[in-house]
Amino acid sequence: MSASSQTSLSDYCKEAALRAKRASVELAQLPEVQKNAWLQESAAALRSRTSELLLANEKDVTAAPGYGLTPAEVDRLKLTTSRIEEIAVGMEAVAALPDPVGEVIESSVRPNGLQVLKTRVPLGVVFFIYESRPNVTADAAAICVKSGNAVILRGGKEAAHSSRAVVKILQKVGQKHGLPADAMHLVETLDRDAVSHFLALPEYIDVAIPRGGEGLIRRVVAEAKMPVIKHFTGNCHVYVDASADLAMAERIVVNSKCHRYGVCNACESLLVHAKVADKFLPLLGKALAAREVEIRGDEATRRLVPAAKAVTEADYAAEYLAPIISVKVVASLNEAIEHISRYGSRHTDAIVTSDVTAAQQFTAQVDSAAVLVNASTRFNDGFQLGLGAEIGISTDKFHARGPCGLKELTTYKYVVLGDGQVRE
Amino acid sequence: MSASSQTSLSDYCKEAALRAKRASVELAQLPEVQKNAWLQESAAALRSRTSELLLANEKDVTAAPGYGLTPAEVDRLKLTTSRIEEIAVGMEAVAALPDPVGEVIESSVRPNGLQVLKTRVPLGVVFFIYESRPNVTADAAAICVKSGNAVILRGGKEAAHSSRAVVKILQKVGQKHGLPADAMHLVETLDRDAVSHFLALPEYIDVAIPRGGEGLIRRVVAEAKMPVIKHFTGNCHVYVDASADLAMAERIVVNSKCHRYGVCNACESLLVHAKVADKFLPLLGKALAAREVEIRGDEATRRLVPAAKAVTEADYAAEYLAPIISVKVVASLNEAIEHISRYGSRHTDAIVTSDVTAAQQFTAQVDSAAVLVNASTRFNDGFQLGLGAEIGISTDKFHARGPCGLKELTTYKYVVLGDGQVRE
Repeated sequence: MSASSQTSLSDYCKEAALRAKRASVELAQLPEVQKNAWLQESAAALRSRTSELLLANEKDVTAAPGYGLTPAEVDRLKLTTSRIEEIAVGMEAVAALPDPVGEVIESSVRPNGLQVLKTRVPLGVVFFIYESRPNVTADAAAICVKSGNAVILRGGKEAAHSSRAVVKILQKVGQKHGLPADAMHLVETLDRDAVSHFLALPEYIDVAIPRGGEGLIRRVVAEAKMPVIKHFTGNCHVYVDASADLAMAERIVVNSKCHRYGVCNACESLLVHAKVADKFLPLLGKALAAREVEIRGDEATRRLVPAAKAVTEADYAAEYLAPIISVKVVASLNEAIEHISRYGSRHTDAIVTSDVTAAQQFTAQVDSAAVLVNASTRFNDGFQLGLGAEIGISTDKFHARGPCGLKELTTYKYVVLGDGQVRE
Repeated sequence: MSASSQTSLSDYCKEAALRAKRASVELAQLPEVQKNAWLQESAAALRSRTSELLLANEKDVTAAPGYGLTPAEVDRLKLTTSRIEEIAVGMEAVAALPDPVGEVIESSVRPNGLQVLKTRVPLGVVFFIYESRPNVTADAAAICVKSGNAVILRGGKEAAHSSRAVVKILQKVGQKHGLPADAMHLVETLDRDAVSHFLALPEYIDVAIPRGGEGLIRRVVAEAKMPVIKHFTGNCHVYVDASADLAMAERIVVNSKCHRYGVCNACESLLVHAKVADKFLPLLGKALAAREVEIRGDEATRRLVPAAKAVTEADYAAEYLAPIISVKVVASLNEAIEHISRYGSRHTDAIVTSDVTAAQQFTAQVDSAAVLVNASTRFNDGFQLGLGAEIGISTDKFHARGPCGLKELTTYKYVVLGDGQVRE
């Protein structure tokens, strides 16, 4: 790209970010009733304009092989009447969530009469960079706007027509319900450098949220001058304790591993206490074989499950997103916790146990966004935990951890009300 | 420095950070009673070993001119019996604060019986880089350890002997009360590169907190691979509205400006509504002249306060930390809010008004850590807001905003308790 077109790209990004910042000031004060009306009517509009959306999506699907998309990826890109219905239902679900803005998180009256209100406010402007799935465009716009934030949407180029059609509908409905014109901005240029330009504008953009492969996230972290909410890999563990109910353990491991393979909260690594390995692993081996899950185990595992392949260090750290699981027999709860601390990704880890002390030690010492006792790792999800729609699951500890929904897109300010107080 | 000594510096930093990380796992589970016993007995030990501290401090004070410290800076560096008493009282105050660790922030029972506990946990390891004041060493150690974090302390070289003496006492008492040996680590090398090495270790250090000049903070932000809690300038405004009680306004402006000049929550900029400028500014001019505060005003101000000098754009953005104030007459509340948005530092801003609508608009639209109605800017302080001891006042919006105390050094995890639940 020439120097002058780089200048114009830089100007375009700066202008879009400045407009988003201005819109965010209005959005921060938009009453919930208007935000909900926008969400509900947008859902209705997506339904009534299904044919228009399918037409736009067809252009993306036709172009997809040219972008080198695999058949599975093309399938995820594809819209159907029922998928549009799901998007609409998703927007209605966000409308039903309580508005976090304005909540008084804490308050006190000081001895001098000052009233101190720690009040929830939006972060401001969210820069969301995501893969080529058109439903994510609608989800992200809904979550950001409901939490009072403006959003700059940078979706995958493979879904450009579909995303444009979705945003056009949401913006048109927004106009009717008093949303600022720049509440949502879809980045139209396909230039990869646009992302870099936006990431250099911390004066306008309050947080960047990348969702996609590890390469994308690392690029965003390296370049961003503003905070980033990261969603790295999910190498989730199930640890079957010496005191575990083994039938329960089998159900939980099978569900955690096999409910869906391609998701971040699927189990990738299994740890089994040596005391129950003899009984448990042959049973589990059969259950996983029936589901065609490949086991990669240590020596002790391979003695008990002859079909298992040899595990490597890389396996212990892997997020397979596939019907493969690494298995290790451990001598103690401490060894299990150390293994998770060494190889885990601080996403989701579960213990199966009937020993309350073991449960307490595990939940206290495993440093992950979600630690579960006697439940499937698949429950670490905004809806499953009762938190509502999420824009991602953070593997950070700072600001937002775990499912990242409306509240995680807010901050707070101290509003202090006096009647003339000064400091002595 | 030679390549091999750089390697050994890098090794030293990595070793110190790794030890801190290990200590943080133990600290996260240390019962409050032990942490409080450590704080209280440390306070007693600081008192009983005053002569030892004074002796160490004398070495720093003697060396200070060699570091080019001004007399005012030497004064801040100096310990006295009463200053040691203040440090001890500060540690007792932290002991009296509630332990944030383990608090269940939110909880729910899901329809399937899963119990979801959003539980407060420490961040882990804090890397604190600060100016050469020995009292800050004790404050920071107290706040970090009480909130369950290990801390790496990098103080100014000018206070090296004093800080070492303080940490030695705190560590010795810590041993007695079960604190891990590496709960506090004082960086002993004077090599400036040590900071860079620590900032490159996000796998061990969870947050970096620089406190000092803007140059230091910018350097830390540029280099840090982990999150940084920033404390940039405080260009705090008082806006005197058309409906203000002018006697109250005078009290608040004088207190905000003159209570202490060198602090981040002092008023640096005054905005006065045109309707009351004629009456208010001559009165205020006298009050500030009596306190030898220099006024830098716009044309309208200078007509009313002839002694005022001409204001510049740079003045509007300045954090003087001195008896100087910039003054501007504005035509409306909106103009005041726009001025604050353009020149302010998002730290602390106050309105004086008797109009409830104006108060609401100001607190809603001014995007600062603290917004005050009819009260002095000097109240934006952890103790004054009832939040307790603070390690700084964050001008960030992400994670921690405003006074940064025990809670702001924590994060949370989802602890999920089931009895065999799997996802359908």
